[in-house]
Amino acid sequence: MAQFLNGRETIVTEAIDGLVGISNGRLARLDGYPHIKVVVRADWDRRKVAIVSGGGSGHEPSHAGFVGKGMLTAAICGDIFASPSVDAVLAGILAVTGDAGCLLVVKNYTGDRLNFGLAAERARTLGKNVSMVIVADDIALPDIPQPRGLAGTLFVHKIAGAAAENGADLQAVTAIAKRVISGTRSIAIALDTCTVPGSPREERIAVGKAELGLGIHGEPGVELVDFAGARGAVALVVAKLGKAMGPGPHVALLNNLGGTSALEMAVLTNELARSGIAASISHLIGPAGMMTALDMRGFSLSVYPASAADLAAITSYVQVPAWPGLSKFGVPQMIPMPVGIAPKARVPSANAQVRKLVLGICATLLAAASDLNALDAKSGDGDTGSTLAGAARALRDQVDELPLNDTPALYRSISQLLSQTIGGSSGVLLAIFFSAAGEAASGGAQLPESLRAGLERLQQIGGARIGDRTMVDALAPALDELTLGLPAAAAAAREGANLTAAMTQARSGRASYVTGGQLVGHIDPGAEAVALLFESLASQQI
Amino acid sequence: MAQFLNGRETIVTEAIDGLVGISNGRLARLDGYPHIKVVVRADWDRRKVAIVSGGGSGHEPSHAGFVGKGMLTAAICGDIFASPSVDAVLAGILAVTGDAGCLLVVKNYTGDRLNFGLAAERARTLGKNVSMVIVADDIALPDIPQPRGLAGTLFVHKIAGAAAENGADLQAVTAIAKRVISGTRSIAIALDTCTVPGSPREERIAVGKAELGLGIHGEPGVELVDFAGARGAVALVVAKLGKAMGPGPHVALLNNLGGTSALEMAVLTNELARSGIAASISHLIGPAGMMTALDMRGFSLSVYPASAADLAAITSYVQVPAWPGLSKFGVPQMIPMPVGIAPKARVPSANAQVRKLVLGICATLLAAASDLNALDAKSGDGDTGSTLAGAARALRDQVDELPLNDTPALYRSISQLLSQTIGGSSGVLLAIFFSAAGEAASGGAQLPESLRAGLERLQQIGGARIGDRTMVDALAPALDELTLGLPAAAAAAREGANLTAAMTQARSGRASYVTGGQLVGHIDPGAEAVALLFESLASQQI
Repeated sequence: MAQFLNGRETIVTEAIDGLVGISNGRLARLDGYPHIKVVVRADWDRRKVAIVSGGGSGHEPSHAGFVGKGMLTAAICGDIFASPSVDAVLAGILAVTGDAGCLLVVKNYTGDRLNFGLAAERARTLGKNVSMVIVADDIALPDIPQPRGLAGTLFVHKIAGAAAENGADLQAVTAIAKRVISGTRSIAIALDTCTVPGSPREERIAVGKAELGLGIHGEPGVELVDFAGARGAVALVVAKLGKAMGPGPHVALLNNLGGTSALEMAVLTNELARSGIAASISHLIGPAGMMTALDMRGFSLSVYPASAADLAAITSYVQVPAWPGLSKFGVPQMIPMPVGIAPKARVPSANAQVRKLVLGICATLLAAASDLNALDAKSGDGDTGSTLAGAARALRDQVDELPLNDTPALYRSISQLLSQTIGGSSGVLLAIFFSAAGEAASGGAQLPESLRAGLERLQQIGGARIGDRTMVDALAPALDELTLGLPAAAAAAREGANLTAAMTQARSGRASYVTGGQLVGHIDPGAEAVALLFESLASQQI
Repeated sequence: MAQFLNGRETIVTEAIDGLVGISNGRLARLDGYPHIKVVVRADWDRRKVAIVSGGGSGHEPSHAGFVGKGMLTAAICGDIFASPSVDAVLAGILAVTGDAGCLLVVKNYTGDRLNFGLAAERARTLGKNVSMVIVADDIALPDIPQPRGLAGTLFVHKIAGAAAENGADLQAVTAIAKRVISGTRSIAIALDTCTVPGSPREERIAVGKAELGLGIHGEPGVELVDFAGARGAVALVVAKLGKAMGPGPHVALLNNLGGTSALEMAVLTNELARSGIAASISHLIGPAGMMTALDMRGFSLSVYPASAADLAAITSYVQVPAWPGLSKFGVPQMIPMPVGIAPKARVPSANAQVRKLVLGICATLLAAASDLNALDAKSGDGDTGSTLAGAARALRDQVDELPLNDTPALYRSISQLLSQTIGGSSGVLLAIFFSAAGEAASGGAQLPESLRAGLERLQQIGGARIGDRTMVDALAPALDELTLGLPAAAAAAREGANLTAAMTQARSGRASYVTGGQLVGHIDPGAEAVALLFESLASQQI
């Protein structure tokens, strides 16, 4: 699969430059490209304990994205999924370590252990006070002697980072890091592998299956399990973690392995809140991509039994945009529906003249149905006539339940009836027309003004202008002439409707997807309906 | 492709509950499931202008993720890529609109225009002061009458949201929103379509191609273009935007359409900083997923010529975790490499006894090479003997360049030489051993203590314990006995080495991947090498 990169050789340095370039001066990188890829705090003065982490790239925002006041002092970036060299680690250590010393936070992968370990030795040889902790939070195999480091590492970065920022000494910061490591448990599950830049994607996981207990480098999971949706996935993960958790409230960290959509992560959050360990989880970090495996569709869940002091450290200020913060883990708040949603009950009233008018309009539309359908078939799906006839039939059948003697209420009732009986855009547009007309009428506007207010709103919402080959081409000129009488309005409507037959391109509505040639010679069915209505009214057939 | 969800019918309500449940009480949702899916600020007191947006779901964190102090007051969520109903929008309006009124921010899709438009009419009928703006920032087709709304909508949410939060009235907030809309331009590009929950994924875009000018619902782009990496993609997007931009500095907004990895987004950020419009861009929002199309691998770029007042609004406080904030768009800072990376030059010194010892060790290892290879072939790749012989050869050849008369310096020199001549883990581990021994020696430790310090560090970094079937099984007992003399140490080393032949499972190093049965009866080659060395030393062959 193609990716937005320029080449595997430069992807990491380019990504670092992208990150550092928008850090508002908070970050810098060492002048050691391409071999030495180290991101450091630009505001670092070496008076506090430095917290240095890193490893292979491909886990963004880890690790460079977590460099900043309150978390990491430096991140040593290897190539994709490859440990950085001893020289790179040493350069990072030397760049940030003062008299207060330096803590290396290393995830438990052989390459990282060795390269960070040897760099630490070298730095000690050069007089630096360096300690190193190994994060091994993966519980995929409970009795494995060397569990992997997963996203639980973020707990270490944040809590040890806060301690260092508060001025704790190296011994204290190291002890804190070790304590956090000893309490952190993580496990991951995925539905798909990741796309390693420059390599073909391995389609390893069959449909209906998931891998449980995987690392962050696309390596296979410990178990191939049946996938039973978000709920099933959380249940599997939680069953493993539940056995490994001690008593008391825990902070959970829900990490996107990279390719899971934000929508899915929110669903997973909801499942976690209803899971078997929900009662043991007081707070949540995420959901967010924190320790990713490129674009892997999966997630990891980490838990840590945070003390009050740990919680204070986790919530302490951090100048790191990628840090998602801590939330209380609670039940979604719900508030009652507002009153007023249900339409007001109609109060029927009688007006013989209006009743005759309404029924006449209905009859006209019913009679024109098949002609309008035929016109619509030239440009659409051939249902304009039937749609309008359906609305006319409903209006006719309910005419004696309408407030015929209360013009604003009548408009609003028609609006409501149209939105209920006509599907799609046209029903909503006509409902908007009558609703706005009713609003104008209730403000004292007379018939022409009210209808023009309706037209104005219809055009604003629907976007159709004169010449766009819609009902507006007939309705707008008709309303312009309406104060001169119905015959003038009807003539204008007809003229406007006829003009649509010459329009080669519909610019609004469904006909806009039809090419011009097919439309020429045929009047727009909406405009024709409007013209027919005004002609009926003018000829006093209604 | 499988996804982490429980069903298309419940995905949106579950995702909303996931979001609201971790909002620390900031958010609530209306009690209108499943039809009415509305997220509102729980702390809203209706004294200010409400900003309401929404549309189909699948664009997370839009829209519910941007509800909070300083941005949206409510988000109306439809089903995936489907406009919410009129009733849902009306419920949202009524839930948050007080005397100050309400601004609806609607993206230019027919369904949204109509449903939000009719709901606005209904709300006006109910006495609410509602205005509505339509965002149409897509420039994919410059002369299209109805451009789509894309991620440029975020500019409107943030700037109008800040104005409302600061107490501006509805007229002013609406005018600001219209001004922002008129200045915002966006375009999107993608390498792949998105996975609509419950539908098969459409594999539409051929390898080597990209779609330029697409929307946020998986619809095809306006152009199918050749894909030329991150640089080419940014160049295409920037060429379109450049033509549509006015003079003066702009704020850019780099939006992940959902499936692009964080690594790629950082590379794209770097490309943007070097692009044809870089000089016109003063600030950047993102990169982040703000207006996604589920898991689409693509991005959109939006630009807006922000005034000083706009910048203040964009940077004003917002209680919305999904808002990525504004960064200055600058050149990555670079700092010089620390001094001390390059190893200190060796100062050779003579010591005949030490020279003889070193050469004797080398000779022993060279003589044992093929036996050790044979042992290694039982559990590994059969190169332990050759690897050690290579190091021995290098040491032998450079013996007169070593500081033979300065024990700490000698250890360190050997450490450096081993890390340069032995590849993989074993070279680094031996380098760590000698480096730590050198550190101890420079602190005044005698030979046994120095070597034990080296062993301790080797075990800490390498993780191997007694019984793990490694060289530690011979080295540790030998060093324990070393103060009693070389014969005792050699006997202990031999005993420890022999014990490894009975170990059914290697627990560290490469042999840990080999099942036990294959190992029984064969001494670990590393332990054997250690035993041979001590035996040579004890028998005074060296």
